[in-house]
Amino acid sequence: MDCIIREAEIQDMVNVLALIKELANFENEPDAVVIDKSDLIKHGFSEKPLFKIFVAELKEEIVGMVLFYPRYSTWKGETLHLEDLIVKQEKRSLGIGKALYTRFLEYAYEQKVKRVEWVVLDWNKNAIEFYKKTGANILKDWRTVQMHEKALNEFITSKK
Amino acid sequence: MDCIIREAEIQDMVNVLALIKELANFENEPDAVVIDKSDLIKHGFSEKPLFKIFVAELKEEIVGMVLFYPRYSTWKGETLHLEDLIVKQEKRSLGIGKALYTRFLEYAYEQKVKRVEWVVLDWNKNAIEFYKKTGANILKDWRTVQMHEKALNEFITSKK
Repeated sequence: MDCIIREAEIQDMVNVLALIKELANFENEPDAVVIDKSDLIKHGFSEKPLFKIFVAELKEEIVGMVLFYPRYSTWKGETLHLEDLIVKQEKRSLGIGKALYTRFLEYAYEQKVKRVEWVVLDWNKNAIEFYKKTGANILKDWRTVQMHEKALNEFITSKK
Repeated sequence: MDCIIREAEIQDMVNVLALIKELANFENEPDAVVIDKSDLIKHGFSEKPLFKIFVAELKEEIVGMVLFYPRYSTWKGETLHLEDLIVKQEKRSLGIGKALYTRFLEYAYEQKVKRVEWVVLDWNKNAIEFYKKTGANILKDWRTVQMHEKALNEFITSKK
């Protein structure tokens, strides 16, 4: 398969945004994506970028991407977080997802981080089996907590 | 209560490390902390710091800290992650944890991030109730996946 995995460039962001939106549509949340191309460029290609992306290119078409950024463990030190790994619906099962995953792990290895992490839906048994086979652990008793902008604003306003 | 919440400085890192180790001891994992003071200084006070810390100071003693860093949502944009909130065992129930939590949320509000997040153990009902009261959501179906340095090295080596 003539699939090239390479670092994303600014001009790829239109295709990266399309991948993000395709996934949101697939998950029945078409309106959830509030960022646009200029946000991706501003946040990913500034002096202090918030993330890094590898894209998968097949016959000059961007067909997938993996987006990740640094995190920090107060026990272990530097870590990397895989935020999104997306492959175009019609290009699945060609090994592109695995190639992006492997490239991300190679990068983590090169950076000598102490841990990599991400999240998975608990009903996604295929993904969980795949991750376990590659040496990852699923933490059963930790839950993600999120507070969105609206609730944050309400909390702060109520304190004033 | 004469508790001051302020940004941590380099000279606080000896006390911050002591708090991190106290928590690891309390969780019966005294050997889990592999970072030292110089790592905290290198990673938190460089040109591109990996995290930011607020400390709680009570009668000139550091009695608590909250450590956090930026993350990125491909749907919402800039977010902040609360990695650790620690209060010295003998200074609990004085409102110090809530003061640190509130200061973190104020900072997030000032930074205009789209979301803040963290993780909680699913059996920690008191913490979960507290978070919910402040407007946070607990995500029930997402699981954290981690691959540690050793497994990462094995995965990469097996590919070569």
